[in-house]
Amino acid sequence: MNDYTPGPRSRIKRNPKRGSYDRATVHAILDSAMLAHVAYTIDGQPYCTPTIHWREGEILYWHGSSASRMLRTQGPGLPVCVTVTHLDGLVLARSAFNHSANFRCAMVFGTARLVDEPAEKERALYAVTDRLFPGRNAELRPMTAQEIKATSVVRMDIEEASAKIRGVNVGDDEEDGTWPVWAGVIPVTTTLGTPEPSPVLPAATPMPAHLAAYSPGRQLDEALQDSFTRWQTQT
Amino acid sequence: MNDYTPGPRSRIKRNPKRGSYDRATVHAILDSAMLAHVAYTIDGQPYCTPTIHWREGEILYWHGSSASRMLRTQGPGLPVCVTVTHLDGLVLARSAFNHSANFRCAMVFGTARLVDEPAEKERALYAVTDRLFPGRNAELRPMTAQEIKATSVVRMDIEEASAKIRGVNVGDDEEDGTWPVWAGVIPVTTTLGTPEPSPVLPAATPMPAHLAAYSPGRQLDEALQDSFTRWQTQT
Repeated sequence: MNDYTPGPRSRIKRNPKRGSYDRATVHAILDSAMLAHVAYTIDGQPYCTPTIHWREGEILYWHGSSASRMLRTQGPGLPVCVTVTHLDGLVLARSAFNHSANFRCAMVFGTARLVDEPAEKERALYAVTDRLFPGRNAELRPMTAQEIKATSVVRMDIEEASAKIRGVNVGDDEEDGTWPVWAGVIPVTTTLGTPEPSPVLPAATPMPAHLAAYSPGRQLDEALQDSFTRWQTQT
Repeated sequence: MNDYTPGPRSRIKRNPKRGSYDRATVHAILDSAMLAHVAYTIDGQPYCTPTIHWREGEILYWHGSSASRMLRTQGPGLPVCVTVTHLDGLVLARSAFNHSANFRCAMVFGTARLVDEPAEKERALYAVTDRLFPGRNAELRPMTAQEIKATSVVRMDIEEASAKIRGVNVGDDEEDGTWPVWAGVIPVTTTLGTPEPSPVLPAATPMPAHLAAYSPGRQLDEALQDSFTRWQTQT
């Protein structure tokens, strides 16, 4: 079972050579991103909401959005599509037509449900902090019951999923190879900067060891993937 | 008319202090991004597809996706929500609850239609290349009729729109100010790397002047905003 089974929602129709149903590929795209976009429909109107997501096995969680109000009244749950995209490069060709972008994208389908049971919700909320920053919860002021109540968490079992990746240099038509203009890829990376301490932080409060993965200049996707792996090892 | 009029689709309900309907704010978020996520519904199933988008006044265009097949059969068009999100920082607090992300997000609503009229489509396809890389079309091998036919372009008049921005340091509860753990913001930027020439590029083909905005180390959002402004000035 290394592949997801493609269904009507997830089968890749355009550029199938860029597509994959491989679980490890889908998981890596999800786990190395902080932001997902969630599509859902309310009264026939589609919405696309950015959110912080995290994965546990074949379950995807995210922080509640305007869909939460809808979900509160929806016993059977709401069909959703959650998409994570990394932009990796601008692809410049000798023809306008062959311009493109390098990217890694995962589209994941399932039925969203609100996590309402207090113990499950508390566990999920501790999990997102430790998934992003393994070891952080142990140093934080504990959550209060009121905080747990005030946060909404959405849960979705992954039913179908696919990945699409473009990660090569420019695909110029053969006869364009001598056209006298520069062509190639301009790489794009999302990186971490120098931490900006809270203005109310007591002087000389050190960066804790658990934040080592997020060192200045590091790629965010690598820091997130490392942290995910570290979290999986600890739990 | 500096603000969009909020309607049932776009009215901001959560954290309204972070929200805005200001046109310039929405436009800047759209114009400084290359990727948008488009939500649409087919037979009750929502989809969230990443795409390259571009704006001309109050019209948003994007490259066709699996929605194109649907649009081809939909005279009146398809309701969509197009969302652009920039991740700007990880916000680490003294409590799990106050952890957050810095971001700039625009959500734009309208009715998507396929651009099928050949002249309008040709114009739109030249526009996206010049919007991203002003001056590039003049140096490229011209598009062929077949290429124009093979690309799908979707157009949407912006009917409603809102922006949401978090761009401050950590919002710890006052009583948490002395909790002895590091808190603050780890900035996140998306930047351009060193160009990788096409393997079939004749040696010594220079980077053209029209790519100056995309110099190594530059932030992608700034390069895109600059290019947009330069394109607007030229046309």
